[in-house]
Amino acid sequence: MMRKLRELAELVGGTVIGDGEVEISGAGAIDEARPGEITFVASPKYYGKLNETRASAVIVSKEVSQAGKPLLCVANPYLAFAKILSVLFQQPYQPRGVDPLASVSPAAQLGKEVTLYPFVYVGDRCRIGDRVVLHPGVCIGDDCSIGEESILFPNVSVYPGTVIGKRAILHSGVVVGSDGFGYVKDGRKSVKIPQVGTVEIEDDVEIGANTTIDRATLGKTLIRRGVKIDNLVQVAHNVVIGEDSVIVAQVGIAGSARIGSNVTLAGQAGVADHAEIGDNVMVGGQSGVMNKLAADAAYSGTPAIPHREYLRVANVWQKLPEVKKTLLELENRLARIEAAISSGKEK
Amino acid sequence: MMRKLRELAELVGGTVIGDGEVEISGAGAIDEARPGEITFVASPKYYGKLNETRASAVIVSKEVSQAGKPLLCVANPYLAFAKILSVLFQQPYQPRGVDPLASVSPAAQLGKEVTLYPFVYVGDRCRIGDRVVLHPGVCIGDDCSIGEESILFPNVSVYPGTVIGKRAILHSGVVVGSDGFGYVKDGRKSVKIPQVGTVEIEDDVEIGANTTIDRATLGKTLIRRGVKIDNLVQVAHNVVIGEDSVIVAQVGIAGSARIGSNVTLAGQAGVADHAEIGDNVMVGGQSGVMNKLAADAAYSGTPAIPHREYLRVANVWQKLPEVKKTLLELENRLARIEAAISSGKEK
Amino acid sequence: MMRKLRELAELVGGTVIGDGEVEISGAGAIDEARPGEITFVASPKYYGKLNETRASAVIVSKEVSQAGKPLLCVANPYLAFAKILSVLFQQPYQPRGVDPLASVSPAAQLGKEVTLYPFVYVGDRCRIGDRVVLHPGVCIGDDCSIGEESILFPNVSVYPGTVIGKRAILHSGVVVGSDGFGYVKDGRKSVKIPQVGTVEIEDDVEIGANTTIDRATLGKTLIRRGVKIDNLVQVAHNVVIGEDSVIVAQVGIAGSARIGSNVTLAGQAGVADHAEIGDNVMVGGQSGVMNKLAADAAYSGTPAIPHREYLRVANVWQKLPEVKKTLLELENRLARIEAAISSGKEK
Repeated sequence: MMRKLRELAELVGGTVIGDGEVEISGAGAIDEARPGEITFVASPKYYGKLNETRASAVIVSKEVSQAGKPLLCVANPYLAFAKILSVLFQQPYQPRGVDPLASVSPAAQLGKEVTLYPFVYVGDRCRIGDRVVLHPGVCIGDDCSIGEESILFPNVSVYPGTVIGKRAILHSGVVVGSDGFGYVKDGRKSVKIPQVGTVEIEDDVEIGANTTIDRATLGKTLIRRGVKIDNLVQVAHNVVIGEDSVIVAQVGIAGSARIGSNVTLAGQAGVADHAEIGDNVMVGGQSGVMNKLAADAAYSGTPAIPHREYLRVANVWQKLPEVKKTLLELENRLARIEAAISSGKEK
Repeated sequence: MMRKLRELAELVGGTVIGDGEVEISGAGAIDEARPGEITFVASPKYYGKLNETRASAVIVSKEVSQAGKPLLCVANPYLAFAKILSVLFQQPYQPRGVDPLASVSPAAQLGKEVTLYPFVYVGDRCRIGDRVVLHPGVCIGDDCSIGEESILFPNVSVYPGTVIGKRAILHSGVVVGSDGFGYVKDGRKSVKIPQVGTVEIEDDVEIGANTTIDRATLGKTLIRRGVKIDNLVQVAHNVVIGEDSVIVAQVGIAGSARIGSNVTLAGQAGVADHAEIGDNVMVGGQSGVMNKLAADAAYSGTPAIPHREYLRVANVWQKLPEVKKTLLELENRLARIEAAISSGKEK
Repeated sequence: MMRKLRELAELVGGTVIGDGEVEISGAGAIDEARPGEITFVASPKYYGKLNETRASAVIVSKEVSQAGKPLLCVANPYLAFAKILSVLFQQPYQPRGVDPLASVSPAAQLGKEVTLYPFVYVGDRCRIGDRVVLHPGVCIGDDCSIGEESILFPNVSVYPGTVIGKRAILHSGVVVGSDGFGYVKDGRKSVKIPQVGTVEIEDDVEIGANTTIDRATLGKTLIRRGVKIDNLVQVAHNVVIGEDSVIVAQVGIAGSARIGSNVTLAGQAGVADHAEIGDNVMVGGQSGVMNKLAADAAYSGTPAIPHREYLRVANVWQKLPEVKKTLLELENRLARIEAAISSGKEK
């Protein structure tokens, strides 16, 4: 959707330096943007590219005041760019209704202006909110609730009794509400512990492709408002993830772990069962969280330790063969001294 | 389904202390259970909660003999709780037959009282056992066999020629029988090695959401009786997993690895191709198994070493910067002594 | 399909020693092959099995010149075996057309001799090439292009605008084109950065079950010709993977990483965002690639270091408790010497 630069400036609360009438129809990275597109520079180290880019306008921070082309000055260029992208690429929602090849229980309740593609299954007593979009192959078990304007991409599976809030985005292959992995050994045999709890996903949550979120044994697995989860993440039974936390791809969170709010877990990190992570914590990629991590700090490694310590540990780790060699040398030098002293005494 | 406490006691072979006529209609964790529900205490450290819980009865081990409410005494409280949960929450199976929107080959053979939901595909010459439930979006390729009372949750994909035993539970998004990852390099190009083997899953196996089990190159990938696999696990071609083994989420098992019986692989562990893990082994989370692990022991770390050693290694690992510092100090002290001795000799 | 040994020899450019007229109808591993089947021996350490196998013929390298049965001598026995497997097990393609239970946009363009199974969805303006096979539950969003002879197994999800080349194989549950994981923080809230780029997959790519490949933020995520990706791999937005590279199961590649050509990433390895891996690099299992890896070398560990160094590091790592003990001993011995010298001086 084409916009004038000054319109975009109003939208993001920025100011234009240069021609506010220039028309913007798209956006691109600084090296790839073409005439008619807007780009952004978030870091001073790229200021040199301001005069090279073919973009018709550049979003910059307030410290930049001139360039050979129109500028849009804002406090946070990347944030402004995200908002402008939304406007430029947004497509007005056009409900498609319920496809004849969808299978919807007569006992389900559908909101206004929904879109149910072919091969969608909706079970008994489900409540599907206004303007919800269910793509092909989505399966919603009995007694689920999906909040308004949520989008479930193809082949998402939602088990019975799941509650999903408003404006949720579930990418393809997501599974919500599968049985938690709970057994008790009777001799060698594993006796299944019925997983009779549920999953609740609050508003404004996005979940990446093929991520799995298990239902609770008892009670509920809880994903709080604004949480963003990447692809192929495992969230086990009875886990709680606090508001606005960010879980990167292939992270695994074991049963009953408590993740605070505004936490970031980087890719492939693992969190042990019953572990507790405080608010505002950052955990590095591939780290292993065993017990408790205090709030407001960064951690890395397995077992996870404060990130700065980890960097020093990792540094020595790389030099372990050297450490060993030095140790041997010291031992030899020491043995020589001991021999010298001993022979001195003998004399 | 409501039960009297004495009925539940009979079911699990326990004894009631107090009123056996109390009626139980649900179950909950000790902190959350409400009146009318039963709970359990598995560990002495929670005995203090016996008098706080609002539950109407508590399952305890035989060493507990009194509390302010009815008790159910058993050898293994958690096991008894699992069995009681099954009874309280079981729903009688009601077959739904074959939905008109399912696509079943006329050359397939369906057992009695099956349930095939909409958008289920069953290929040629499949044999689907009695009371099997195939949820929406399940696809069964040609020449498969699914044993009686197995449940395949939404969007499970089973490739041709797969054999699945009785009472199997396959959660949403599971893939069984996909091609093993086998290529041989012809110069730089990867020539595909046709994967012409199969997968066989024995009775009483449960497989978690989005787990993948590849077919064998030749012969078969084999998941033995009673194996339990969590979500997002990778089982490569020609792997064998022994009876009653437990594979936790995001574990990866590479080609031709042999896992013994009653083994536990904790979350995110990796097993290299052709590795061999003996019976009753436990492997810690995120560990890497390279070759062989002898039976009846616990291992951790990458490469995996005996778990007790690993704990000591991890302990020193965290102190590596200190180790380095100590090493430097020793070096300096040694240099001073050497200098002293050397100057002594010169005198 | 039955073949004479001499026909197979022609096919792979090998020579027969012994009876070229023997008929081969199948293939097996050396321990399992039965009469009528062919097997292979790739390594001298298995030459002893040449006389034990029940196979009717054995593929061997040119240095083997006699055995008690017909031999097929070639430069690369494993490669020849792969090619022979293809011939013996190939089934002539029989197009099934478009199933009445498939949902295909009238605005889509289908090639010749396609197979669209039930419950396939094809969106507007898609171009589906000749002899493409779309298995049940495959969903192709609007404006996609699938090259000729590609096979998409059950429940694959392809988001709008994706381009897939010729002879691609996408296994069940693969997701291509899901939104990249891009947010910018506005205070604590995560503002979604619209992911308006695409994914392009070139010719002869195979992608394993439940692997996810995200669309680019801007521009495209690019999987080049001949790349082979295993199961449960995460490929983030704007990643580029070079020709003929091989990505093993559960690898995670973060945003904008550049993987060279002919690279091998072993299982569960992680690659950080914006990392760069040169051509012909091998990265060990569970390794963590942080920044740049120079071409033509092998690396392991987290952070990844040259593989040979890693082996030495891992060796000392296992002995860390010993290192610590030695360090304490040295300290004690040193203290004794210092005390001796000090008391000597005092005298």
